Amino acid sequence: MSVIDVIRAKRDGGRLTDEQIDWVIRAYTAGVVADEQMSALAMAILLNGMDRREINRWTDAMIGTGIRMDFSGLRRPTADKHSTGGVGDKITLPLAPLVAACGAAVPQLSGRGLGHTGGTLDKLESIPGWRARLSPDEMLRVLREVGAVICAAGDELAPADRKLYALRDVTGTVESIPLIASSIMSKKIAEGTGALVLDVKVGSGAFMKDRAQARQLASTMVALGTDHGVRTVALLTDMQVPLGLTAGNALEVREAVEVLAGAGPSDVVELTIALAREMLAAAGIDGVDPAAKLADGSAMDVWRRMIRAQGGDPDAELPRARERHVLAAPASGTLTRLDALAVGIAAWRLGAGRTRKEDAVQPGAGVELHAKPGDTVTAGAPLLTLHTDTPERFEAALDDLAGAVTIGTGTVGTDGSAEGGEEFTRRALILERVSA
Amino acid sequence: MSVIDVIRAKRDGGRLTDEQIDWVIRAYTAGVVADEQMSALAMAILLNGMDRREINRWTDAMIGTGIRMDFSGLRRPTADKHSTGGVGDKITLPLAPLVAACGAAVPQLSGRGLGHTGGTLDKLESIPGWRARLSPDEMLRVLREVGAVICAAGDELAPADRKLYALRDVTGTVESIPLIASSIMSKKIAEGTGALVLDVKVGSGAFMKDRAQARQLASTMVALGTDHGVRTVALLTDMQVPLGLTAGNALEVREAVEVLAGAGPSDVVELTIALAREMLAAAGIDGVDPAAKLADGSAMDVWRRMIRAQGGDPDAELPRARERHVLAAPASGTLTRLDALAVGIAAWRLGAGRTRKEDAVQPGAGVELHAKPGDTVTAGAPLLTLHTDTPERFEAALDDLAGAVTIGTGTVGTDGSAEGGEEFTRRALILERVSA
Repeated sequence: MSVIDVIRAKRDGGRLTDEQIDWVIRAYTAGVVADEQMSALAMAILLNGMDRREINRWTDAMIGTGIRMDFSGLRRPTADKHSTGGVGDKITLPLAPLVAACGAAVPQLSGRGLGHTGGTLDKLESIPGWRARLSPDEMLRVLREVGAVICAAGDELAPADRKLYALRDVTGTVESIPLIASSIMSKKIAEGTGALVLDVKVGSGAFMKDRAQARQLASTMVALGTDHGVRTVALLTDMQVPLGLTAGNALEVREAVEVLAGAGPSDVVELTIALAREMLAAAGIDGVDPAAKLADGSAMDVWRRMIRAQGGDPDAELPRARERHVLAAPASGTLTRLDALAVGIAAWRLGAGRTRKEDAVQPGAGVELHAKPGDTVTAGAPLLTLHTDTPERFEAALDDLAGAVTIGTGTVGTDGSAEGGEEFTRRALILERVSA
Repeated sequence: MSVIDVIRAKRDGGRLTDEQIDWVIRAYTAGVVADEQMSALAMAILLNGMDRREINRWTDAMIGTGIRMDFSGLRRPTADKHSTGGVGDKITLPLAPLVAACGAAVPQLSGRGLGHTGGTLDKLESIPGWRARLSPDEMLRVLREVGAVICAAGDELAPADRKLYALRDVTGTVESIPLIASSIMSKKIAEGTGALVLDVKVGSGAFMKDRAQARQLASTMVALGTDHGVRTVALLTDMQVPLGLTAGNALEVREAVEVLAGAGPSDVVELTIALAREMLAAAGIDGVDPAAKLADGSAMDVWRRMIRAQGGDPDAELPRARERHVLAAPASGTLTRLDALAVGIAAWRLGAGRTRKEDAVQPGAGVELHAKPGDTVTAGAPLLTLHTDTPERFEAALDDLAGAVTIGTGTVGTDGSAEGGEEFTRRALILERVSA
């Protein structure tokens, strides 16, 4: 097999054979195919696409470079959730214990944040003592005893994907739907979950800015999951505005705990319950109402046991940033726009995110929102509070936020428009459902 | 400047800015941009193209990584020729001394063969004592004293191209007209020739199998030369059949010397004279007939002085391969087809070419033709003679030649068709002329 023939086949618009895909993934993982050859192939795939058979085989080949986990011994249906990432997306934190409280086992392998979207592990690490890295045996034990576990994906799941993702990240070949879908799904399939719900974010704060593209990614992943025997559905959800009222690690944990306590921002509660219903349906669990399990404290119980099982103290004080800066509303009226991307970048700059994989994050840093679009604001009252340990970063964060906010100086009309000239339309949070 | 932004711009169908091109070529040459990033960019260029401004700037940037030579001190117009490579293409050997005999200075920087097309330097190295590598000073001295020099392009001309070509060779990104054109032209422009004639080969034995593609490559290179003040024209010439009656290093030198002695195969003579006329016209030299300079021995005089100036003995016996195998005509009739690619691959397999850059070639190896399409052949009479020092390779070469020959068992009709059923159409050698 010659790698140049494989590259040429895709470059010239052809379809790769099963043998070509198996070989190139194995040879790349083993270092026989060089980075510069794989990046040329990735660019050819990005520009010329792959069909369903190719994407399935590509995913299989990546899974085949590592181990597959097996939760059949749990005697409980398993369900997992994956979000494509957004600003203020702390949903996994209340969701995993909630779904466990409803009777499913939730093996949630998560990642860290890079750039403006946060990572679930970074958020949980702001809880004193909590550790992300578990051995497969430890993971299984927590899952059996608690019903939910959130931990780092080990090197043993689809190692080809880890190598390929790092390469794509530096070669401008990230934005390919077949490559994104196979990257996400190879890990989820190898993880061995029986049911999977995908939260595909759409909007300024999301990876996919465009709804048609997000739908295509969702369909591709749902097809991949289905073809591999995982009951998979996807929700397209709005990411034009941050989720909830916080973006930043400890800030988001605090908000997640509010939701688990039966309170919290309505959009976070709505999405948590919607995703929980989808996970339970996909796992074949009927007749349990997740809203009730939030209200009666069962989800909170699982959360506390889950945090403790990984060394964390659920009662510990969460870290707070040393410095705060309040951004006041420049006018009175209706907040018509609060751009998710700008908030995400500001939070990242304040220290909540990292630029390189090896950077540390500030657990207390981030952005707190005092209003959401549709709310009435008063000139001079707090609109956003910025949190950081490094106050020299306030200026850059404020620059990022310039232009991120629009206030309509009238009131919201019955048709949803603000009378001050700027129109306000309340967007649905859940835009669309994609199933097999 | 971020290389990922440059890759994305081209990937998404945009045009690269001058600043992006200058930076990426410099940064790649310096090792700041990694191979895997450049190969992704090369694939994006291959699939999305570059416009005339981008190709010009890309070429300038590659030239700018090295030195530019200057022949203005010669007080003779300079003219060079470049062939895109074919089977049996020994034209440079008689052409350079012929054009020098007509009054131009010919600074011919040449390359080595890779794969089935031969390299001019490999051919000349079959002459005992001759050496390809000259310093810029030595090159200038030979050019001044003899009027023609054929030598290896040094590392000092467009080093970016050398690095990029090696990368493209292993990443399936060779077949891009903008990248091929800028690779060839960066070296020719840096070399400092005033006039340039391009011999763009078309057909089975050529890099470009298709006439429209060859025309596009020719136009791109003519535009590049013209935009850089080099008077450039291109001829599209046939490479469906090998040029002359030999393919292989010493075999081709022998044939070139026959041409310089006023004899030799008619197609080699025709193309040599046609290219000489173009070079002289582009160099502004009127009223000299190259055919007369071949006939009166002046071209042969220059040849002998040129070989001697580089340490070679023009009177030395040329190497011969130790073993020969004669392939007889399987039938009597008209030879209607003799495939250039098959002959090129057979010669390469017999030892005339190399697989990797570091391989040595057998000077005596190759294929000798006893007939060309249109000739009458007799069953059992020699059709091809294979030459090699490693007779175990005869079998593989014969396999390559199976199906390469067609004999029409009738005679050639007045309309060019062979009566035995296979049609024979004599193709023109010079297909088309492309000028600014």
